[in-house]
This record gives sequence, structure tokens and C-alpha cells, in this order.
Amino acid sequence: MITWNNLDTLEAFKNLSKAERVNIAEAMSGENGAERVKTYSTPMAEGLAYNYAAKQVDDKLLEDLQKLADEAQLTEKFEALYNGEVINTGEKRMVLHHLTRGQLGEAVNADGTDKRAFYKEQQQKIADFANKVHAGEITNAAGEKFTTVVQIGIGGSDLGPRAMYLALENWAKKNDTFKMEAKFISNVDPDDAAAVLYGIDVAHSIFILVSKSGTTLETLTNESFVKDALKNAGLDASKHMIAVTSETSPLAKSDDYLAAFFMDDYIGGRYSSTSAVGGAVLSLAFGPEVFERFLNGAAEEDRLGTEKDIRKNPAMLDALIGVYERNVLGYPSTAVLPYSQALSRFPAHLQQLDMESNGKCVNRFGERLDYVTGPVIFGEPGTNGQHSFYQLLHQGTDIIPLQFVGFKNNQMNTDVVIQGSTSQQKLCANVAAQIVAFACGKEDENRNKNFEGGRPSSIIIGEQLNPETLGALLSHFENKVMFQGFVWNVNSFDQEGVQLGKVLAKRVLAHETDGALKVLSDLMNI
Amino acid sequence: MITWNNLDTLEAFKNLSKAERVNIAEAMSGENGAERVKTYSTPMAEGLAYNYAAKQVDDKLLEDLQKLADEAQLTEKFEALYNGEVINTGEKRMVLHHLTRGQLGEAVNADGTDKRAFYKEQQQKIADFANKVHAGEITNAAGEKFTTVVQIGIGGSDLGPRAMYLALENWAKKNDTFKMEAKFISNVDPDDAAAVLYGIDVAHSIFILVSKSGTTLETLTNESFVKDALKNAGLDASKHMIAVTSETSPLAKSDDYLAAFFMDDYIGGRYSSTSAVGGAVLSLAFGPEVFERFLNGAAEEDRLGTEKDIRKNPAMLDALIGVYERNVLGYPSTAVLPYSQALSRFPAHLQQLDMESNGKCVNRFGERLDYVTGPVIFGEPGTNGQHSFYQLLHQGTDIIPLQFVGFKNNQMNTDVVIQGSTSQQKLCANVAAQIVAFACGKEDENRNKNFEGGRPSSIIIGEQLNPETLGALLSHFENKVMFQGFVWNVNSFDQEGVQLGKVLAKRVLAHETDGALKVLSDLMNI
Repeated sequence: MITWNNLDTLEAFKNLSKAERVNIAEAMSGENGAERVKTYSTPMAEGLAYNYAAKQVDDKLLEDLQKLADEAQLTEKFEALYNGEVINTGEKRMVLHHLTRGQLGEAVNADGTDKRAFYKEQQQKIADFANKVHAGEITNAAGEKFTTVVQIGIGGSDLGPRAMYLALENWAKKNDTFKMEAKFISNVDPDDAAAVLYGIDVAHSIFILVSKSGTTLETLTNESFVKDALKNAGLDASKHMIAVTSETSPLAKSDDYLAAFFMDDYIGGRYSSTSAVGGAVLSLAFGPEVFERFLNGAAEEDRLGTEKDIRKNPAMLDALIGVYERNVLGYPSTAVLPYSQALSRFPAHLQQLDMESNGKCVNRFGERLDYVTGPVIFGEPGTNGQHSFYQLLHQGTDIIPLQFVGFKNNQMNTDVVIQGSTSQQKLCANVAAQIVAFACGKEDENRNKNFEGGRPSSIIIGEQLNPETLGALLSHFENKVMFQGFVWNVNSFDQEGVQLGKVLAKRVLAHETDGALKVLSDLMNI
Repeated sequence: MITWNNLDTLEAFKNLSKAERVNIAEAMSGENGAERVKTYSTPMAEGLAYNYAAKQVDDKLLEDLQKLADEAQLTEKFEALYNGEVINTGEKRMVLHHLTRGQLGEAVNADGTDKRAFYKEQQQKIADFANKVHAGEITNAAGEKFTTVVQIGIGGSDLGPRAMYLALENWAKKNDTFKMEAKFISNVDPDDAAAVLYGIDVAHSIFILVSKSGTTLETLTNESFVKDALKNAGLDASKHMIAVTSETSPLAKSDDYLAAFFMDDYIGGRYSSTSAVGGAVLSLAFGPEVFERFLNGAAEEDRLGTEKDIRKNPAMLDALIGVYERNVLGYPSTAVLPYSQALSRFPAHLQQLDMESNGKCVNRFGERLDYVTGPVIFGEPGTNGQHSFYQLLHQGTDIIPLQFVGFKNNQMNTDVVIQGSTSQQKLCANVAAQIVAFACGKEDENRNKNFEGGRPSSIIIGEQLNPETLGALLSHFENKVMFQGFVWNVNSFDQEGVQLGKVLAKRVLAHETDGALKVLSDLMNI
């Protein structure tokens, strides 16, 4: 029997608040530190490992976190979710993105169909379509092959697929699976679409319109922009466009599209990278096999999320440490720092995933919470960040927990030796060094050069960023956010906070405003 | 006589802490709200305006902030800075980036020369060089014109110039001043350089190596990567490379470069966009006239920074409101939200500018501070952010102050009408709507759809993003950060916090580690 309780009513949380603080500057020093790095590591899927040696935990605190996981029934709630319970209570919907990559539990039926079969069917339809495009069986009107794919979408229809595309672009080029270049149009700023269209050959481009409802204003506006460009080039837009939408949307059966692939209401935008939303663009760009390998990595990681032992469930452990940092230690933000240029937009995707899911101040029953929930998430790739905002991370007045990601090998397999080491070795040496620098600090008589240390971090380490490890990485963070939502007792799967701005913007465009909004609209020349 | 005191010793700060809190949900409602939008606006250079109607201020609080400005001697300190006092006390250096775009005070002499004349001379040398490249007088060995410029640099040598390039790329294309495409290599991850080199025609590319000291490891490593690529293409690297460095660096007089342009120790990396660091790449990409217009915009805005009246000095006012939010209201981070796709990397630049400058826990005398300093800065362009992390901004448990930027007109002048309005109108309507939505909120019986409001924001509004307004915008934020550093009594112009990681990374590469660092190095295969 599952009960949904607020965090501050749980005995395990009250215990956790009383636990002695771990001094990581001390804990990470000497042989004790070496031992921590070896033992505070949890295997993930696809050879990845989650290492939390530099977090403010010890065996006693891990026990406390286990008790919190048990009392909050985290794995039971996950089980309910993947077995099709209505977890998104605000919108009264099931939450089924895990089914896009595997079947963790019972068959889930909805809309008169088995949902796992439905998602597989869409994946297969996309694969067939992509194969035909690559083989030159689906071409432009002149019978020429498409060379570029352009995704038109915003929010979850943009950030996730774009981050995944960038993560695998160079890998695919190196591994001869690169099929088509992908571009993305998202912003309603007309310069976004104009700049993308300026840089491509529209006659050889295929456009994917992504909108679940078929009514997203930014996306429809950009579609119109693209259709104008196609028309101006003397082309038939309907021969250049496909749709990813829900079966009930106005786009689903329209003749305006070469094909339509379906998603549904059980998959939130920010969780849609493994659905048709990511599937169409990634299958066209890299081939359906690469997309399937990405799904397999996510599925393998998902299975670890069912483990009750927090030391075997990296997403749940990561989630609980994050809650401890947020609600007990009082840290207001978290930095995501991948040491991989290919993950340049991965922090932006996690920013949406996390902040849109858990940036809520009411619980799942609509009651105001008395504790803080989702933190601010930000980040840039290392080593770039080291030459930028790391100054504040090392010596600022606030402590910011850090999430590093690093790979032993790069993707393109070209490198250069300078001062006795390769670039890849320098990259890896830097992330290792940062973990210790943040944790242990270094005393200096010149206080300006003094490092207090005590700044916690964890790292996910892998062999290489490839389709499988990317899938595992994505699943890890999706499930981490889900577990945190369970702990905080919020609904992580709606986003009512985006509505008010939309309503007011419509009012501005209809010139139905007064007061401050009227004057602001005048100032903006609307 | 200037005195440097900690914020918590100032009478004006003690008063400020006692001031009554402004309820902006109330203040921004009805006719009062309309009046605030009209009056709480300060003109900036180049037709921009800083509107702070939706900040938690009123006339009384503005008086308190004025007193703080006066007691902290903010304009006097700025005057000392631009007249050449050693403001960067940690490194015992003057702070002269304002001289790259104008002369606000007395002549400043250093290294046996007038520094304004020195920066102008570098700008002119770059202009001559760029003009010759554009005219085909400086070419590759085959006598063919260069078509691409690639900046090799990291941190301030990358983020600022890259953000400025992206900000003006489409404007330049539209206004026929676009000369050469620019690319950037920064990360020591070998895939970064490999991907850029994969996508360009090296035979027609000119590379700018940017390193003040000439010893930045990431940059030298990437230079070597590029030289290998040139050599492999059968090209003479020294005919494809220029350097931006200090006159005393090993690069300054090397035959490895076609030309060298100089910066100096009085300009920190994050303040170097208006020096040769930004000048070379922007002059090559858009022509020297565009770069000069950018400098003129910055110079005009700099002059406003000398105003003692906070209502006439937007950077100082912005700074003081930020200090009030950070040190009195206790808000830990700030989001930068430009409603302009061209400013996509502007938040990343401000993140460095702000967090590296003021992420310090000791004052300028090396004494530990008892109050918080620089906040976390993050952001993405609107409307994209609206479909992402705005959920947390609207309904999360923490209040995050917001800095909007919006322009009445887009850059490329192509647009489309959907549902009765253009994309540009939708963009502008959204930013206006968001300001009111954040400030006023909206009650709803369903608490899940309830917006508490009370979330402060300001907006900088302009006609169009062009070289002049971009310069003014950059100057505004540089000076805001400087004024905040003065208020917090920190040295905003050094970055000792980046050193420890470098030292430890070297130790890892030399295999001179033990304890946790040794095990981490093994895990990363170094």
C-alpha cells in the first residue's frame, strides 16, 4: 500500500536532519580518501559508474538515506509508475516514458492498445521511413536525396533531442553512421528560423514539426516561416515535412505532411527524447540502429532504478544525496559539469528536466509545502567552466554541489601530445584534480589564495560517450528527478507554471490589457 | 579620500536592512503599476532603457540605495579606477578595460606609454590587417582569399568574443558587413578542435591564437592540434596564424605568426571583448567599422557610469538593487533572459563576467567576509526558457530575480503573420507578459494553478540589437559587476580560485599524486 506523505512528516527525514555533518575536506584526505574513492562507487549500465566519494556522506548517513528511501517507498512508487498508475495526478495521466525503451513491469493498456507495443510501432515506422530516406526511396520532388533534417519544436521538443544530437554527432561521423545533418528551430524570435534557413539548402531538407497538441504557438509560427521559405523556393511544402504529434491532434491526419509519427499524453515533453520526438530526428541523422542502441542504454539503466538497495540504485542514491544537500544542508543550486564538449547542451536539457519537473511549491494534493524543492540547475562543459565561473564555485560565499561527468576516451580518436600528455589525458587529469581541489581545498597564508574546500561533488565515469552510454546517462537523470519528486511529494509531470505567461501574452496580442501590462506593451511597440 | 570598507560596516546598509519590504504583486497592480513602469525607467546609451518597475523598490528604498552608493563612494572608486589607480590589489595592477573604448578621465601611463593611445594603436593595427585580408592583399600561400577566421582561446578569450560574434552575425549578414565566418576552439577536449577542423576549409582559414601569457595550456594544446591539421594539408602554419597576446609573451615576436596584436595585464580576460581579444576576430568577421561602432556604444554607456545620481546611472542602480536582493532579501541566484536568439551565449558570458569577478569570500585586504557576495548567474534566451525552467521561476520554492532584455525589432527583417501577429510581436508580447506574470501572479482555487507572484524582474529595452546597442549592453553589465564588487569590498579583477585545480592537474599528469587523487587518476586511466 503506497502512501504519499510530505518529506517533513517522515521519521527518516527528521533523523537525517539530526545526523552529524561529514567533513569532506578531512574525509577525502590521505588513505581514507583513497578508500572512499574505491568504495563509494555504484555501477551503472553500460560500464558507467556513479562515484560519490566527494559527497558529504559516510556509512552512517547512507543508512539514514536508505531508511528515507524505504519510508518514502521510492521503488514502490516507481513500480506503480511503470505499471501504469495515474502518477501525474494534476493532469490525471499515467507516466509512461520508460515504456519507450523497455517493459519493466506489467503490460500497460490505454487508448485501447498496449502502450509498449504502440511505442515500438512508432519506433519501427520511423525506422522504415528513415531507411527509405537514406536509401533514396523517399526523396524531394526532383528525385534527389534529402541531406538535412530540421526539427521545429520548443522546450522538450527541442532541448533533449538537440542535446542528444550534439552528443552523438562526432561519434557518428567517426563510426560511419552519420546520415544527415540536423538543425533545430525553436525560438519564436523570427531571427532563429531565418538564420537556420539562411544556412541550409531547403530543396534538400526535410522538416519535422513536433507538437503534441498541434497547437504550440511558437512551433506553428515557425512552421509557417518554413513553409513560406519552401514556397518561395518553388517547392511543395507537403513533400518536405513530417509531423510528430498525438494521434488526436489536427496534424495527425493532415495532407500537409509526408508522414506523421505519434507520441501521446503519457509522455511529458522533457521526458520525450526516447519517444518519437527524439526518434525521428535521431533516426534520420544517425540511422535507426543508433537510436535503438540509445534506447537500449536507457532501458538497461532503468532496470537499476528498481533496486531497493540505494548502493545498487545510482539514480535513487543521487536523488537522496541531492535532497540531503537541498533540505538539510541548505544548498540552493547544483552545477552540472560534463568534461566532454559533445555534452555542451546536456546541462541545458537537465536544467529543463529538473527545474520544470520539481520547481513546485505545492504537493501532489495541491497543498503548500513548508520545505524547499527543486534547486537551480546550471552548467557548462569543463575545461571551459574552469576558466569561467569555477572561481565562485571554489572561493564564493555559497556552497554549490557539483555533478561531474567524464569519459576515459574521446569520440573522434584524434589527439595531440603537448608537454608529455595528450589532450584527452589533460581533460581527464583536470576533472580528477577538480574533485580533490573542491573537496580538500588548500590552506594559504595569503587568504586570497586560500581554498577552504568542503565543496561536495560526484562524478559519473565512463569509457566513451556513445549511443548506449548516452542513453544510460539520460535515464539516470530522468529517474533521479523522478525519485526526488517522490521524496518531495510533488507531481514532477505537469507544468502549470508555464500557463499564466501564455494567457497574458495572448491578451497583449489581442490588445486587451490595462495597467502595467498595457504600458509595457506600449514600450515594446505591440 | 577613498576608504574601502566592508558592506556590513556601512550605516546605509544597516538602514537598508531595516527598510520595509515592497510588495511588488501589489505595487505592480492597477494604475500604480502603470505609473511605476513609466517612471522607474532610466535611459541608457544608444536608446536603451533600464526599466526596474518590477523590482522590490519604491522611492524610499531608492533613497536608501542612493545613500549606500554615496557612503560606499561608488563613483569615486570608479573614477579612481579609470584614472589608473591600482584597483586590482591582489595582482597589483591597474584596471584599464574602459580605455579600450574611450577616455573617461586623465591620461593613464604605464609601461612607458599612454595606455589609451596604446589600445587605439592596436585597434588600428587590427583594422589595417583586417582590411588587407578582406581586400585580398593578405592571402594564403596560393594567393587565395581567407574565408573563415577561427579563434583559439579559452575563458575570457572565448566566451565574450563568441557571444559578441553570435550577437552580430545575422545583423551583419542583413547589413552587408559580413566578411568572414568565425569559429571558436576552446575546450581541451580534443573533440572540440577536431569537430571545428572537420567543418572548415583549413586552406582558406586564418587562426587567431589568444593567450595573454602565451602559456595557457588548453590554448597551446589546441594550437598544436591546428598546426598539425595545417601541416597535414600541406600548408605553412605560420601563414595562417596570428596571435593576440601581451608584448612580453613568447608569442609576441615569434615567426610562427603572420602578425601579433597586443593586450596587457591591465585587462582581465572577462573584460577583454573590447580589446584586441575581441577586436581581431570581430574586425575580421564584420569589418573594423562594425567593431568601432561596438566600442562607441560601450564608451557612451561607460560615461553614464560616472553619474552620482543612481537614477541617471543604470549600471550602478542595477548593481545596488542586486546587492539589496542578495544581502537583504537573501536571493541566491539571478537569471539572465534575453528575448533575442542572437544573444544565445550572452548569458554564458555574463556568467563568467559576474561569477569570476565577484565569487570571492575575502575582501580586497584578504579578510574573510561575513556576508554573501556574487550570486549564481544562469540563463537561456526567451521564449525557449518559458518552455523549460520558467516553471521553477514561477512556482518554485525559491525566489530568483530576473534580468530580461528585449528589442522592438529583430535583426534579419523577415517575419511571418500567424493568428494576427508577427513572430516579433509574439516575442515582445511574451516578455511583457512574463514581467507582469512574475510580479503579480494570479490566484487560483486549484493551488496547482496558483501563482503567488512577488518575483522581481527588470528589463533592458532597445530598438534593435546592433553594434552600438550591443556595446552599451556589454558595458552596462561590466560596470554593474564592478560597482557590486565595490559594494562588497572585494577585488573583482583577479581569479585566484582557478589556480589550485591547475596545480593539481599538473601533478596528475606528472603522476605525482597519492590518496584520493591517485585513485581518481587511475579511474580516469591517466
